[in-house]
Amino acid sequence: MSAVDYIKDNKQKFLDELFDLLRIPSVSADPAYKNDVLKTAEFVKESLEKAGVDKAEICKTAGYPIVYGEKMVDPNLPTVLVYGHYDVQPADPLELWDSPAFEPVIKNDKIYARGACDDKGQMYMHVKAFEAMMNTGGVACNVKFMIEGEEEVGSENLEIFVKENREKLAADVILISDTSMISLDTPSITVGLRGLSYLQVEVTGPNRDLHSGVYGGAVANPINELCKMIASLKDDKNRITIPGFYDKVAELTADERKALNEAPFDLDEYKKDLNIEDISGEDGYTTLERSGIRPTLDVNGIWGGYIGEGAKTVLPSKAYAKISMRLVPNQVSDEITELFEKHFKSIAPKSVKVKVTPHHGGEPAVTPTDSVAYAAASDAFVEAWGKEPIPTRDGGSIPIVSLFKEELGLDTVLMGFGLDSDAIHSPNEHYGVTNFMKGIETITLFYKHFAAKSKN
Amino acid sequence: MSAVDYIKDNKQKFLDELFDLLRIPSVSADPAYKNDVLKTAEFVKESLEKAGVDKAEICKTAGYPIVYGEKMVDPNLPTVLVYGHYDVQPADPLELWDSPAFEPVIKNDKIYARGACDDKGQMYMHVKAFEAMMNTGGVACNVKFMIEGEEEVGSENLEIFVKENREKLAADVILISDTSMISLDTPSITVGLRGLSYLQVEVTGPNRDLHSGVYGGAVANPINELCKMIASLKDDKNRITIPGFYDKVAELTADERKALNEAPFDLDEYKKDLNIEDISGEDGYTTLERSGIRPTLDVNGIWGGYIGEGAKTVLPSKAYAKISMRLVPNQVSDEITELFEKHFKSIAPKSVKVKVTPHHGGEPAVTPTDSVAYAAASDAFVEAWGKEPIPTRDGGSIPIVSLFKEELGLDTVLMGFGLDSDAIHSPNEHYGVTNFMKGIETITLFYKHFAAKSKN
Repeated sequence: MSAVDYIKDNKQKFLDELFDLLRIPSVSADPAYKNDVLKTAEFVKESLEKAGVDKAEICKTAGYPIVYGEKMVDPNLPTVLVYGHYDVQPADPLELWDSPAFEPVIKNDKIYARGACDDKGQMYMHVKAFEAMMNTGGVACNVKFMIEGEEEVGSENLEIFVKENREKLAADVILISDTSMISLDTPSITVGLRGLSYLQVEVTGPNRDLHSGVYGGAVANPINELCKMIASLKDDKNRITIPGFYDKVAELTADERKALNEAPFDLDEYKKDLNIEDISGEDGYTTLERSGIRPTLDVNGIWGGYIGEGAKTVLPSKAYAKISMRLVPNQVSDEITELFEKHFKSIAPKSVKVKVTPHHGGEPAVTPTDSVAYAAASDAFVEAWGKEPIPTRDGGSIPIVSLFKEELGLDTVLMGFGLDSDAIHSPNEHYGVTNFMKGIETITLFYKHFAAKSKN
Repeated sequence: MSAVDYIKDNKQKFLDELFDLLRIPSVSADPAYKNDVLKTAEFVKESLEKAGVDKAEICKTAGYPIVYGEKMVDPNLPTVLVYGHYDVQPADPLELWDSPAFEPVIKNDKIYARGACDDKGQMYMHVKAFEAMMNTGGVACNVKFMIEGEEEVGSENLEIFVKENREKLAADVILISDTSMISLDTPSITVGLRGLSYLQVEVTGPNRDLHSGVYGGAVANPINELCKMIASLKDDKNRITIPGFYDKVAELTADERKALNEAPFDLDEYKKDLNIEDISGEDGYTTLERSGIRPTLDVNGIWGGYIGEGAKTVLPSKAYAKISMRLVPNQVSDEITELFEKHFKSIAPKSVKVKVTPHHGGEPAVTPTDSVAYAAASDAFVEAWGKEPIPTRDGGSIPIVSLFKEELGLDTVLMGFGLDSDAIHSPNEHYGVTNFMKGIETITLFYKHFAAKSKN
């Protein structure tokens, strides 16, 4: 039987298993879910064993463990290192979910659950593709799996793990499915990713909450001041005002920008999908460029003062914000974090105190399109989807891509099967059953083509 | 026995009763406390009866009831209408209280509890002053009590009650203790109060929370936009930029400003007490002027996006803020609310939707210093505190003062015994036992002097 047939025959089994995986709330950002995250690691280890690896292990770290598994077929064959993550984003705001985040359901051929796409669904495709190959004549390459549980909180311990296990992780290419494709009609391969700097700021005015009548107008209000400071971080062209922020930003050539903008994109559809009257971004760039090749600054959360029912006339002592910047080549996360911290403190008025706490970061990355692995991935898409995939720049971040290049000297192929409309990191995250099934098939084809091309 | 002696003899009894009153969490802003608010009304009614009123009743309204009680001694005597409120501000942030908000304790001669000063403590002084007079030869005036339960949420139903009960509430003066004095060494009487406009704003960007990587930089972030809009509400001189906002602001004469600034004020002490390096406010005005005679705009609360543990890279759908403006003569609350709403919508970019919801408001007020009642209050302070009280402008709002003038044609005497440092509306609200006891005494003296002066 062919791997493709095996996949078709086992569709229901694959979905049932994925549902079991999705039911475990592995939220790495919130300590309350610690046991669930650990349970998920166990689940992944067992699923690798069932799929047919020689050995699978749970590798302890200072944080959540990394699940490692391998199938060494023949030292002369090329080796593929599969990376994925089993942790998920927090599910809140819970009230905006149409069905519970951790009770997966299928509606119009889509799987709804936190992690359905990012990244449990896409990670699990690799386990099932491996199982399919093992049950239909074997894998054409050696395979190593490295599935972590801290991607959504910065992959700090993965970095240490990679540095300490260079030999164990030796491979010819890294294969990741944690990105999206343009559409079911237009397959694509991500060749660029943005980096990230994530910080939290705290602005303190008076040492206690004050009556806004008794003190209002005479004492700095930390919320008003925080708003002023945040507003000043962008100019009227929506360019970020932090000195030195753009110094290392790689400008694309006219041709590169032209190619980038040839990807199918319907602005009206885009606005309709988000129900917005107008888009907004840096002057002089298209939407694809703004989200693909330009850096950003977004407030991801803000809070301070009275946020309960009704009205409270308080002049609060403190205000907070979580702020993240997406970075592009050749910006360096730590440098940008430092520039932000320095600038943010410099614009604070004497009437308030400011604390800046860096959360986590990651470097931007660009993957080559002239490698054997990219060609194999491209052929796999052509065979499964009948179309040549378009190389795209994604706005998201997978910090470990640049880490792998640095520490292991390996390029990555970002074979993503999600859609931007999958609402990852949002309520009602979902993942197409078609994407899931066809993705598994595409992955098996990648191994075939990669082995063949590696011979030449 | 004199009233003063009665007060001294019953100190412990008065405090015990006040503690019972403070233990009931009558938070009018939060529906969760509904039963407690109603219980508090009962408590007030019973305490009036025990104190010796002819009749006390709980007057139903569309919201929380108004407790009314009266003692008609002689139609030929002047009548004092006492106003106070039995509801309190929400206690949160609870974690900042050194002792539970609704478990009153005395530390260094101060009563710590939500409502200790605002206004349960100050309101209850009038009940006890009345009791003291009744038990020591009777009251020199007729007395009416009107104690409401919605002051902290706008007194909407009190307004209706007053309009519907003009005869019942007929009196010669209104007496209120819901303000502060300069210090124990420097008694003062409030002659000016600020008005209020309180609104909530909601800014909506995309129709769902988005992944800040996939969409960041290309779609308006409602938090960033809200911050920009809020920041733009004040110019670099800290003047409010809403068109027409200052049109009706009464400018004080040079003499009036001079008199105002003669009140004792120690800027270093002020900064030290709040632990701020610098004050902040409208250019060209002193701190006393900024909080007394100038209007303000403060954000009382702001929230949006992810505010939990750790980091979430979300581009949120919505951001909210509670914003209030303190008003001065002759600004009109409804007009200012309308100006704000119109302006705030006008500055919203096309990329977001804005909703403005007015909460409540109140008019600024100035009370006369040449009335018989003011003279009586002044004499009462001289007799109890040995000093002539200084007339001051308070930054807070007691909207019903202007309502009483309008509907009942009555002036108010604001005999406040709190201190600005009492942390009303804040964690660890407290009220001096001395202020409480000496306040009761001062109130009894007011009746004596008011009756005497009214004869002339």
